[in-house]
Amino acid sequence: MAECGRVDSSTSRHTMDKSITLPPDEIFRNLENAKRFAIDIVAKVRSFDHTAKAASDKLYEISVQEEVTARLHFIKFENAYIETCLDFIKDHLVNTETKVIKATGGGDEMTCLIKGCNFVLRNIPHEAFVYAKHADSEFRFQTTHPDIFPYLLVNIGSGVSIVKVESEDKFERIGGSSIGGGTFWGLGALLTKTKRFDELLQLASKGQHTSVDMLVKDIYGGSYGSLGLTGDLIASSFGKSATAEKEFSKEDMAKSLLHMISNDIGQLACLYAKLHNLSRVYFGGFFIRGHPVTMHTITYSINFFTKGEVQALFLRHEGYLGAIGAFLKGAEEDNPNQYSWGENYAGSSGLMSVSPDMNPMQRARSGTFDMLEMDRLERQLVNLPLLQDPSSYIPDTVDLTEDALAREYWLYCFEEALDGVVKRAVASQPDMPEAAERAEKFRQKYRHKLQTLRHQPFAYGSLTVRSLLDTREHLHDVAHILVHNCLFCLFFPSERPWLVDCYDQWFERIKGPPHKCALFFVDNSGLLSRGTEVVLASNSGPALNDVTNGELQILTEKIAAMDSVIQAGLKEDRLTLVQSGSSSPCLDLSRLDKVLATVVRERKTDLVIIEGMGRAIHTNYYAMLSCESLKMAVIKNSWLADRLGGKLFSVVFKYEVPAGRPSLDSTALTPS
Amino acid sequence: MAECGRVDSSTSRHTMDKSITLPPDEIFRNLENAKRFAIDIVAKVRSFDHTAKAASDKLYEISVQEEVTARLHFIKFENAYIETCLDFIKDHLVNTETKVIKATGGGDEMTCLIKGCNFVLRNIPHEAFVYAKHADSEFRFQTTHPDIFPYLLVNIGSGVSIVKVESEDKFERIGGSSIGGGTFWGLGALLTKTKRFDELLQLASKGQHTSVDMLVKDIYGGSYGSLGLTGDLIASSFGKSATAEKEFSKEDMAKSLLHMISNDIGQLACLYAKLHNLSRVYFGGFFIRGHPVTMHTITYSINFFTKGEVQALFLRHEGYLGAIGAFLKGAEEDNPNQYSWGENYAGSSGLMSVSPDMNPMQRARSGTFDMLEMDRLERQLVNLPLLQDPSSYIPDTVDLTEDALAREYWLYCFEEALDGVVKRAVASQPDMPEAAERAEKFRQKYRHKLQTLRHQPFAYGSLTVRSLLDTREHLHDVAHILVHNCLFCLFFPSERPWLVDCYDQWFERIKGPPHKCALFFVDNSGLLSRGTEVVLASNSGPALNDVTNGELQILTEKIAAMDSVIQAGLKEDRLTLVQSGSSSPCLDLSRLDKVLATVVRERKTDLVIIEGMGRAIHTNYYAMLSCESLKMAVIKNSWLADRLGGKLFSVVFKYEVPAGRPSLDSTALTPS
Repeated sequence: MAECGRVDSSTSRHTMDKSITLPPDEIFRNLENAKRFAIDIVAKVRSFDHTAKAASDKLYEISVQEEVTARLHFIKFENAYIETCLDFIKDHLVNTETKVIKATGGGDEMTCLIKGCNFVLRNIPHEAFVYAKHADSEFRFQTTHPDIFPYLLVNIGSGVSIVKVESEDKFERIGGSSIGGGTFWGLGALLTKTKRFDELLQLASKGQHTSVDMLVKDIYGGSYGSLGLTGDLIASSFGKSATAEKEFSKEDMAKSLLHMISNDIGQLACLYAKLHNLSRVYFGGFFIRGHPVTMHTITYSINFFTKGEVQALFLRHEGYLGAIGAFLKGAEEDNPNQYSWGENYAGSSGLMSVSPDMNPMQRARSGTFDMLEMDRLERQLVNLPLLQDPSSYIPDTVDLTEDALAREYWLYCFEEALDGVVKRAVASQPDMPEAAERAEKFRQKYRHKLQTLRHQPFAYGSLTVRSLLDTREHLHDVAHILVHNCLFCLFFPSERPWLVDCYDQWFERIKGPPHKCALFFVDNSGLLSRGTEVVLASNSGPALNDVTNGELQILTEKIAAMDSVIQAGLKEDRLTLVQSGSSSPCLDLSRLDKVLATVVRERKTDLVIIEGMGRAIHTNYYAMLSCESLKMAVIKNSWLADRLGGKLFSVVFKYEVPAGRPSLDSTALTPS
Repeated sequence: MAECGRVDSSTSRHTMDKSITLPPDEIFRNLENAKRFAIDIVAKVRSFDHTAKAASDKLYEISVQEEVTARLHFIKFENAYIETCLDFIKDHLVNTETKVIKATGGGDEMTCLIKGCNFVLRNIPHEAFVYAKHADSEFRFQTTHPDIFPYLLVNIGSGVSIVKVESEDKFERIGGSSIGGGTFWGLGALLTKTKRFDELLQLASKGQHTSVDMLVKDIYGGSYGSLGLTGDLIASSFGKSATAEKEFSKEDMAKSLLHMISNDIGQLACLYAKLHNLSRVYFGGFFIRGHPVTMHTITYSINFFTKGEVQALFLRHEGYLGAIGAFLKGAEEDNPNQYSWGENYAGSSGLMSVSPDMNPMQRARSGTFDMLEMDRLERQLVNLPLLQDPSSYIPDTVDLTEDALAREYWLYCFEEALDGVVKRAVASQPDMPEAAERAEKFRQKYRHKLQTLRHQPFAYGSLTVRSLLDTREHLHDVAHILVHNCLFCLFFPSERPWLVDCYDQWFERIKGPPHKCALFFVDNSGLLSRGTEVVLASNSGPALNDVTNGELQILTEKIAAMDSVIQAGLKEDRLTLVQSGSSSPCLDLSRLDKVLATVVRERKTDLVIIEGMGRAIHTNYYAMLSCESLKMAVIKNSWLADRLGGKLFSVVFKYEVPAGRPSLDSTALTPS
């Protein structure tokens, strides 16, 4: 609460635009039900200038936990809205007994920053990315590792803090520099008379640093080979302005300044990383925050100084770290680590490209409001213990961020299907008068989302069929609609040979000794009768027409009443029903319910069966397991069938035996 | 020769002031006899601006070896004089068959720089110093170690090169930065419209960085304790100019810029030193070159980042490294390492304080010409093998740089004695008509030297009675005068007890077994008759009235004819005459003729006798030897006698036995 007192904007109150009307249902809609507040006050400028304009460039963030849905809401907005927000908080939230308000910014924000960083690295898939300006996909997202420590966090605010993070509770500021974002801004303002940070970056992106900087070739006529210096290397930043009489353009000076600062930070980061033997270096702070120009120069600098040994990593939600950390600090009694969290694609703005040349409308929006919603899952999610190499496991078969053709198709496909989905949604709820209105709202939102993803496929990490499906699920949820219908109908099977046809091998295998325990994702078959234990893993929450664990429980009991094999299986504990932890029509084997993982281990599971388009084709088609696996699906999409070299309704029956663990077929062969 | 072609100043030729007349006897007097040229072209600015003014800030250096006296002359002068110099070279030196001209600058200058650096570190006493702005003595000179490797050289020119030097021939540029002197100059020029580098530094020395920089306390109201950041620490360089509407003063901006750049270089230097485990870091380049402001900020930065573990070291002749290295490269066939070198105080300008507030006349001179002369000694100089700890050995008893009272006295004393010296010089050469003129010239020069030393006692390293005596010797030499007379007359001895009186202990020792071999510096006594071998070490060159080795050879032969002990000693090789390697009335035991060191070792010398004011009082009074030693002198100076607590003509008879090697007295004691 003490920190809150620092938000004393009384001097700037008069100059603020009070007429701004917030879009309340969009931005603050969940605040009224909030029990906890965590405000991260990012005060970049203080104490030396209390006048007017300066304040409007500050960013404030607010995070609210909505108890009902166990969802975290983080809203980032410009300082111009702080008054409105504070009034809102005062009117609705303060002095009611259930509210707890925590604010950070100043003093303790480093702890919050690190807490937040650990949180997003652990909980948000595709949180970290490598930036490659000239590559096909600008952003290359990293898979989330359960083991995130140790890492180096280089936070570039006004100055630079270089922090070594060794564990959840142990971090140390091992270095820093006074040459940071404030230096770019401050020197930039003095040199160009341009006061706005964004405009300075825009100037920089148009400039030529070579007209201001002295290059190696300007001194030596070419490279300085014996020292390994190329001719284009900057020998002296601003070296040419030392004696030249000419005027330098604002753009060129801004560019030179940006290079100077980015290179310096990059070099310091590399040296500290080397000294402390750290290979993962994350960059954050307002200097970086989504700005392609700075990400590019930092990346270039890191590559130059480490010769590619260290990669510069950036974070999609870097701007929320302080707020998330503040919330976590406030919610410590809840032990947030007993839960898992997922990014809600419906309620989150996603990563914006603030490239000045690109999508200026969205840039403006990004500058005003930016949201992140995190859904709390009441369980811990872990890797499937049967994954061959968890660290290299990628659930998704096609990365639509990289594959432009596939992206185009699937975005088109999902948009085309939208009307049908809406129609079915309304039809499936004939007794709900508001269903039509909700369905319409859903249609608008999803169309907008698809539009956004067309321009910024990287918004939520790697774009995949899974993320498109999940986004729709999240939007269903927001629109409070239920779609009891399926997009694709089940046809099984056509005549052989199938598109992928391991049926003969499987058939041979089946003749051998029975498996100890099979893990089924979703469907069932006749293994129980062979003495194989069966673990049925079904979704924890609803997605498409997939059966949920709750539904499966009821269903299984009904079947058991009719089928003696099932009945015996349940009775003898050879048939177990466990929830997967997922609410997606797809399957991420690195985020499974911890209970499922325990059962899999205890039962010594030696067969995994994954069935259906979402789980076996869109995801896990290439997943390598350490036991035998069956991946089965009918390709119910002609484009995809084409891509895979088959026809619509082609059958995939993929039976795989891990290398080094031969199937019975091959073990039966004696050396001849 | 190829490099020479790069000195194409044709575009600026027309704008140069051709009317400047060089003081030829001062500056180029030795060039006419020179056989070798080494020109280090320090081209800081090139290729982007060939117009007028810029060129006048460049520095050029020329080094010439004069064969006759085996002396190196290095002359540093402003670019304005390059035309005159080149004309001079063309008219007098080029196209004569004996001349060799080598030029560096561009391409190979790093090799030259390192060669030069190794050379000065090895050959010039008190070359390196620590800078302490607020201490009694601004410059704290380091004793020269024979083992100079490995070290880090941070060369701050337009940009920064960080070079690890591991041996005479092995160096590597391990890092660098584009934020260097050119950045200070370039950004400074843009911010302040001040085009001259020196003026920018002058502005900086008057500014307050706190009005431009954002400090930790500006953000947090005080220190940020949990991260260990004090309130006064710069959080963001130029952070305050980011949003403040006010105008910033040129002085404040220049100061902030200087801090920013110096801190950054300091931090990088520390990180590279740590990474490569190097504790000696030398700073050089035009950004440093004698500028107290930059030396102070660099020193501050190094102290801050290494918490005192690493000291920032600067070099008195840092500006000559390239030229010296170029000469050495050119003279490689001569194997310069077979010689030793000494700084000639008469022909060298010495270190200038370019503090803008101090001695502006001298600053102006320094900016125009700066000279270094090195005398070549045809032998290698080494440590006396009997020094207890060569690395901590300091020859001089009183450091006049630190002891202001003593400095004042001795400068006064030498000035007072000047008339007498001149008179005796003329009187001693009655048949030389030019003696009077030469003596007068000597008087003027020495008086000027004393004047300089009064203002800049640090000009040639630590000021000592020895350096004052040596300076006079060097000037005698320049003025071609011989002073066959002594300042102080010999009186020996007064009645006991003497001021320092170990005579009884020595007398006891003498009763014990004879020494194996005694090393005498200068005088003789009756040890030969006791069976002790005697090594007589006398000066290699003339100094005061001290006997030289040549004179001693003749003298000893004459005595041998009269004295049977001496005769037998010479015959039986028990009396050896060796030159010390010195031409000073004082004695530096760390710079002795290699032959002497070999003899000392071979003879298993166990007694060192040092006699006289210059050798036993002004120097070596506190020297610790690993064998027994006798230091004997009569204090022939009332002020010094007073200082030491005695009277004029007090006798010092200091007999010392090293700890752990007890005298016979104490070994005779049986434990009781």
